[in-house]
Amino acid sequence: MTRVVILGAGVMGTALATPLSDNGHDVRLVGTHLDDEIILSCRQRRWHPKLRQEIPAGVHPFFIGELAEAMAEVEVILLGVNSLGIHWAAHTLSPYLRPGLPILAVTKGLKEGADGTLRTLPDVFLDDLPPELQGCVSYSAIGGPSIAREVSARRHTCVVFAGRDPSQLTYLADLFRTSYYHIWTTIDLVGVEVCAAMKNAYTAGVALTNGMLELLGGPDASGAAMYNTAAALFGQATFEIFQWVQRMGGSTVNAYSLPGAGDLFVTFFGGRSTRFGTLLGKGLSVEEAVQAMAGETLESLEAIRVAGRVLEKWTAQGMASPEDFPLLRYLYRLVVKGEQGEIPFTTFRYPLP
Amino acid sequence: MTRVVILGAGVMGTALATPLSDNGHDVRLVGTHLDDEIILSCRQRRWHPKLRQEIPAGVHPFFIGELAEAMAEVEVILLGVNSLGIHWAAHTLSPYLRPGLPILAVTKGLKEGADGTLRTLPDVFLDDLPPELQGCVSYSAIGGPSIAREVSARRHTCVVFAGRDPSQLTYLADLFRTSYYHIWTTIDLVGVEVCAAMKNAYTAGVALTNGMLELLGGPDASGAAMYNTAAALFGQATFEIFQWVQRMGGSTVNAYSLPGAGDLFVTFFGGRSTRFGTLLGKGLSVEEAVQAMAGETLESLEAIRVAGRVLEKWTAQGMASPEDFPLLRYLYRLVVKGEQGEIPFTTFRYPLP
Repeated sequence: MTRVVILGAGVMGTALATPLSDNGHDVRLVGTHLDDEIILSCRQRRWHPKLRQEIPAGVHPFFIGELAEAMAEVEVILLGVNSLGIHWAAHTLSPYLRPGLPILAVTKGLKEGADGTLRTLPDVFLDDLPPELQGCVSYSAIGGPSIAREVSARRHTCVVFAGRDPSQLTYLADLFRTSYYHIWTTIDLVGVEVCAAMKNAYTAGVALTNGMLELLGGPDASGAAMYNTAAALFGQATFEIFQWVQRMGGSTVNAYSLPGAGDLFVTFFGGRSTRFGTLLGKGLSVEEAVQAMAGETLESLEAIRVAGRVLEKWTAQGMASPEDFPLLRYLYRLVVKGEQGEIPFTTFRYPLP
Repeated sequence: MTRVVILGAGVMGTALATPLSDNGHDVRLVGTHLDDEIILSCRQRRWHPKLRQEIPAGVHPFFIGELAEAMAEVEVILLGVNSLGIHWAAHTLSPYLRPGLPILAVTKGLKEGADGTLRTLPDVFLDDLPPELQGCVSYSAIGGPSIAREVSARRHTCVVFAGRDPSQLTYLADLFRTSYYHIWTTIDLVGVEVCAAMKNAYTAGVALTNGMLELLGGPDASGAAMYNTAAALFGQATFEIFQWVQRMGGSTVNAYSLPGAGDLFVTFFGGRSTRFGTLLGKGLSVEEAVQAMAGETLESLEAIRVAGRVLEKWTAQGMASPEDFPLLRYLYRLVVKGEQGEIPFTTFRYPLP
C-alpha cells in the first residue's frame, strides 16, 4: 500500500483515484481552493458532482486547508491541476517536496519562455521550485487518450507515462496499472507533453466543422455531413503535431500513436476543446465563445495563443518558414486576431514525394 | 472540355462526376452489370438511389452494354469499381486502352500475390492487361478522406492523387480541382494505396468499441462511453499503418497525414467498415455479421484477410516478428479464425525511447 496525494479534485485527478484505489493504495484527494464544493460533496455524500460518479470507498477527501495533514508520509504526488494552476501548484507543494519524491502530472500545456522558446509544463514547474529542489525532484506526466469519466468507469484506457527517470516510471506504472488501465512508459517527456498540449489546439480546429455544419442546418437531405472536412483538418493536425514534436526534439512516434493521433481522436469526442471549436465554427467571436463557456478552462485557447506567438517569433527569426504550420497559424489568426477567414485548405502542405 | 468515362456507378465514382461537371467536362457515367437499376434511375429521373442525390445536369448515364458508345474519343477513365471488380475492370477496359490514356481509380485494396507478397491494386490491374499495354498504361489512384455523398454535396474535401507519372497527375488534378475539392499529388502510389486499403481493416477494429458499448447498454449514468478504448485502437491503428507503409516501401508521411490518419478518421464515421466492426463488437460471428450486411461489399473483411495471411507468411519466413502488428493479428484471429478473445491491449507495442 502506497500513500498517494492527488492535488486537484477536478475530473482527471479524481478519476485516477479509481485505479489507485482498485490497487489498494491509500488515496488522499486534496481539492484546490476552487474545489471546495467538490470536496464537501465527496465528504458528505461520496459523490463527485463533475464526474457524476461516486468516489471509491478508500479515497479520503481533504480541503486545501488540510493539505499538511494529507501530506503526512506521502510517497507519491499526483498533480491534477490544470495548466493555469501550475505556478500555484509549484508554490503550494514546494514545502512538502523532498529529493526522490515522485510527482506524476495529468497537467498539460505549453508556456512561452521569456526568450520566445516553447517550454513544457514540467520545466515551468521545476523552475518555480526553490533552487535546492530543482535538480532532485522527479516530474513525470501522463499522455495518451483519456476521458476522465471513462477511466473511473473502468473502460479500457491506454496511456503513456513519460518522464526523465526510467526507474520512477516503472514504479509509478506499477502503482496505477490495472486490468483496464494500460500503461506504457517513455523517457520522451518533451514529445508526450507537446502532443498533449497541441492536441487541444488542433481539436478546436477539427471541431470548427461541427459549427459550420450547424450553420448549414445540419446534414442535407441526402445525409451529407461534413466529415470530409473534419478529416482533412484531422490529417493536417496529425501532420503538424508530428512537426511540432520533431522541432521540439521529441520522438516522432508519439505523434502517430497514442499521445498524438490517439489523443486527438478522443479529444474530438470528449470535451471543451470541441465545444469551443464548434462555437467558433458557428461564427461566434472568441469573446462570445469564451462567454458561452463561462467558467471553463480553455486549454485549447491557451495552446493556440502560445504556439501561435512562438511561431511568429520563429518566423521573424528565420527559424520557421511562413508556410509552415498553416493550420495553427489560421487558428491563431482566428482566435487571437479575430480574423474570420475561410479555412486555407490550399495552403496545407504535405512533403509528399 | 475533356471527355471522361466513369466506369462503375457506385457512390464514389458517381460523386466525382460533380467536380468534373462543375469544371465543364463531358462526363459519361457507365454502370457495371450490377448497376443497371442505378443507371435506369439516372436516365429516367436523374436520381442516384444510393447517393440519394440528383446527378449533375451534364452527366450522361450509360448501361454497361453501351460501353463502346461511351468510350468514343475518351480522354480520361475514372475507375469506380470496388476492389472485387478489379479483374473484371481490367478485362472490360483493355480493348479501349491506348498508350498514354490516363486511368484514375477510386478503387482501393491489397491483394496477395502467388508468392505471398502483398500487391496493391494498380499492379493487379496492370498484370491483367495484354502484355503490349502493361508498360504504357498510366494508372493513378485517389487517396485521402472522402465520403462520397459529401463530395457530391460540395463539402470541402482534401485528397491525394497518387501515381507514377507526375505530368499525368498534374493533368488529372487540374481536371478535378474545384473550390471545394482540394488535391495534392504524389508519386508514392504504394504508400497511398497501403493507407487506403489498411484503413478499412483498422476502422473495423476501432468500431468494435461501438458494439462493446451497445452490449453494456450504452453510456453509463455518468455519461461514460467507450471513446478511450476506441482512441487506443485508433492510435495503435495509425502506428501499424505507419509500419505497413514503411515495410511496403512507401513514404511514411502518408500514414500521419491525409491518406492514413485522415482517412482512418473519416472512415470511422462513414460506412460499412464501421458497421461491420460494430456487429463484431456486439459478439456476432463473422458469418452473422456478413449476413446482417447482406449484399454489401466488405472491403474491411477482405483487407483483414489479405493482410493477416501475408503476416502469417512473413512471420513463418522470419520477415516479421510474431509481436509485430498485434492489432491486425487480433482482427485476423477474430474475423478469419472466429476466435472471440479480448482485445490484447497489453501486446500493443510502441517503440518509445
